[in-house]
Amino acid sequence: MTAARPKTLLAMGHQVAERLITSRVRDRLAAIADVDPDLVAADFADPAVAGALATAEVLYTSWWCPPVTEDVLAAAPRLRAIVHAAGSVKHHVTEACWQRGILVSSAAAANAEPVAEYTLAAILFANKRVLDLARHYREERTGIDLNGRFPGIGNYRRTVGIVGASRIGRRVIELLRPFELDVLVADPYLREDLGVPRVELDELFERCDVVSVHAPALPETRHLVDAARLARMRDGATLINTARGVLVDQDALIAELASGRLYAVIDVTEPDVLPADSPLYDLPNVLLTPHVAGSLGGEVARLTELALDELERYARGLPFAHGIEAEALATSA
Amino acid sequence: MTAARPKTLLAMGHQVAERLITSRVRDRLAAIADVDPDLVAADFADPAVAGALATAEVLYTSWWCPPVTEDVLAAAPRLRAIVHAAGSVKHHVTEACWQRGILVSSAAAANAEPVAEYTLAAILFANKRVLDLARHYREERTGIDLNGRFPGIGNYRRTVGIVGASRIGRRVIELLRPFELDVLVADPYLREDLGVPRVELDELFERCDVVSVHAPALPETRHLVDAARLARMRDGATLINTARGVLVDQDALIAELASGRLYAVIDVTEPDVLPADSPLYDLPNVLLTPHVAGSLGGEVARLTELALDELERYARGLPFAHGIEAEALATSA
Ligand SMILES: NC(=O)c1ccc[n+]([C@@H]2O[C@H](COP(=O)([O-])OP(=O)(O)OC[C@H]3O[C@@H](n4cnc5c(N)ncnc54)[C@H](O)[C@@H]3O)[C@@H](O)[C@H]2O)c1
Ligand SMILES: NC(=O)c1ccc[n+]([C@@H]2O[C@H](COP(=O)([O-])OP(=O)(O)OC[C@H]3O[C@@H](n4cnc5c(N)ncnc54)[C@H](O)[C@@H]3O)[C@@H](O)[C@H]2O)c1
Repeated sequence: MTAARPKTLLAMGHQVAERLITSRVRDRLAAIADVDPDLVAADFADPAVAGALATAEVLYTSWWCPPVTEDVLAAAPRLRAIVHAAGSVKHHVTEACWQRGILVSSAAAANAEPVAEYTLAAILFANKRVLDLARHYREERTGIDLNGRFPGIGNYRRTVGIVGASRIGRRVIELLRPFELDVLVADPYLREDLGVPRVELDELFERCDVVSVHAPALPETRHLVDAARLARMRDGATLINTARGVLVDQDALIAELASGRLYAVIDVTEPDVLPADSPLYDLPNVLLTPHVAGSLGGEVARLTELALDELERYARGLPFAHGIEAEALATSA
Repeated sequence: MTAARPKTLLAMGHQVAERLITSRVRDRLAAIADVDPDLVAADFADPAVAGALATAEVLYTSWWCPPVTEDVLAAAPRLRAIVHAAGSVKHHVTEACWQRGILVSSAAAANAEPVAEYTLAAILFANKRVLDLARHYREERTGIDLNGRFPGIGNYRRTVGIVGASRIGRRVIELLRPFELDVLVADPYLREDLGVPRVELDELFERCDVVSVHAPALPETRHLVDAARLARMRDGATLINTARGVLVDQDALIAELASGRLYAVIDVTEPDVLPADSPLYDLPNVLLTPHVAGSLGGEVARLTELALDELERYARGLPFAHGIEAEALATSA
């Protein structure tokens, strides 16, 4: 098939564009599409983008792309597709886009990889109590009776629970295959066999040494991990949350952590940046990171490569490899 | 082949025996060998073990087994094999054992697994600067300009160097396969193709974002990582040492760490327990753990399973699957 070089407009935050639209990306964009790589729509009402919007067939979007509302669509009569070089499309792809049948692709699959890697490392360190042992050593500065004080630790025949068979959850399950760990998964929408036992959520919380949350933020998943579920967790178990803060009852978690009963690895909180007096900053049994599990630094190139591949597929008349269906959004991130 | 139930004596520290000789292990031992599971030689001069030593065909050993010297061998005329339920046999298998042709098996292969797991997690966290980002967040307690302040981080197309194609080094190379990382290996004795480029040590230190040391402590490997090699490392690179403290010039490392130029993950030091005033306890860019990467807690069961399999092979007249050759010891751990 011959490629059509579709007229394409970049739409994202200006700072995002500075990072994402590297010279390599400019070259690939120029080869695939009819695009001005220096014109970035960070605001669709900006008069400077009106002309490009009027003729654009594709929006190439990323973080801080403003919502593509009915008004924007009215100003973009030729728009047929949105190729998103980032994860969730929920912020900018509005109901009006779906109604008009705009084709949508997302790089969420590529964004799943670093989150799964962070999670894998967090699981291996949690079962072995690595950060806890480091802290004790730093505090005590003497030989530690490891086996006497930390019986039963390690990554041998322990149980890891994956909440949500999402892109990230599935990738974590894959990455855990080389290890001698038992893996369980809980997801009410899961129909396929992922090669690991599917259990109910309560049972998962009871049986696991590490529980890792990979479900999306939806009205139904608010406080999915509540006080009762936390209470089901084994003494000394670890909760990992790289999904969204709202999935966890944060006060209930803090209470369990303050008592020293549980451990946690927390990349996402409610609100996203915690107030300076949050106990999560100080609790010694928490690894708290500032929403870093997703693509950062060099990892954004992976998102861009996927999005450029999608743009190329579109130009060649092929369906997206990572197309998003409106119906799937009700249960996805 | 019918099994012979060889007369077997346990030899290890008493506390080690308490952890290792579980009821499951007693059952398997009893099924395979003629052994008193309550008699443990922690000292071969102990009169209580003299009778068992005189008739033993196999020593089933683990940590704190005293050296099997010429005198011990003289008191053990029927001894034919040593099955070690731990890693290195260098402490207790003396030259006299090799001279007499004693067959030796080690569970070092099983002990490699947890060290490789620790290393994998340390690599994934190091490239992503996870612990560093956590520390900054804890100190600053506000939103952090991640991309502005930490450009180029992440686990995409970065380079990891493995020093020593040892059991552990090879397993780390295997475990790194699912990731989009470039892996290099340096080992003067490596002849096989491990599927990753082999480079000289100096080049490895220059090219890598993370360097992980997996060579054995030998006279030639003392300060293998010296000031000059550390100076070759890229700004912001991470050194991981789970091998032995003596392989690294610790003062040179501390100088690089104190300047903030490098990061480190250090499980082994010289001496093994650091003096209370060692800067390694306080440097913020170091994850220091008290020699925990090897088998701990539940992980020792993996060593025991391997050793029992070896005992069973011996009883059936089969060669060891993890036999040690005296000649290999000159270049191994
Ligand atoms: N920390 C970060 O930087 C970062 C980066 C990317 C994604 N995320 C978050 O990670 C999570 C997973 O993202 P994804 O792209 O893999 O999701 P996804 O859209 O691929 O998958 C969502 C899946 O969750 C499952 N699900 C829905 N409701 C559920 C419930 N009640 N219980 C269990 N499972 C349920 C469904 O099967 C659905 O397929 C989301 O919360 C997302 O926001 C975080
Ligand atoms: N931290 C822990 O708890 C822990 C646990 C187990 C082993 N270890 C250490 O890990 C290291 C690796 O152990 P292993 O059992 O995998 O080793 P091994 O005996 O399997 O392998 C040693 C290999 O190192 C290579 N080598 C020798 N000299 C070298 C040199 N100068 N440069 C590069 N490579 C060289 C040789 O190819 C040899 O095969 C050892 O130092 C061991 O003491 C630490």
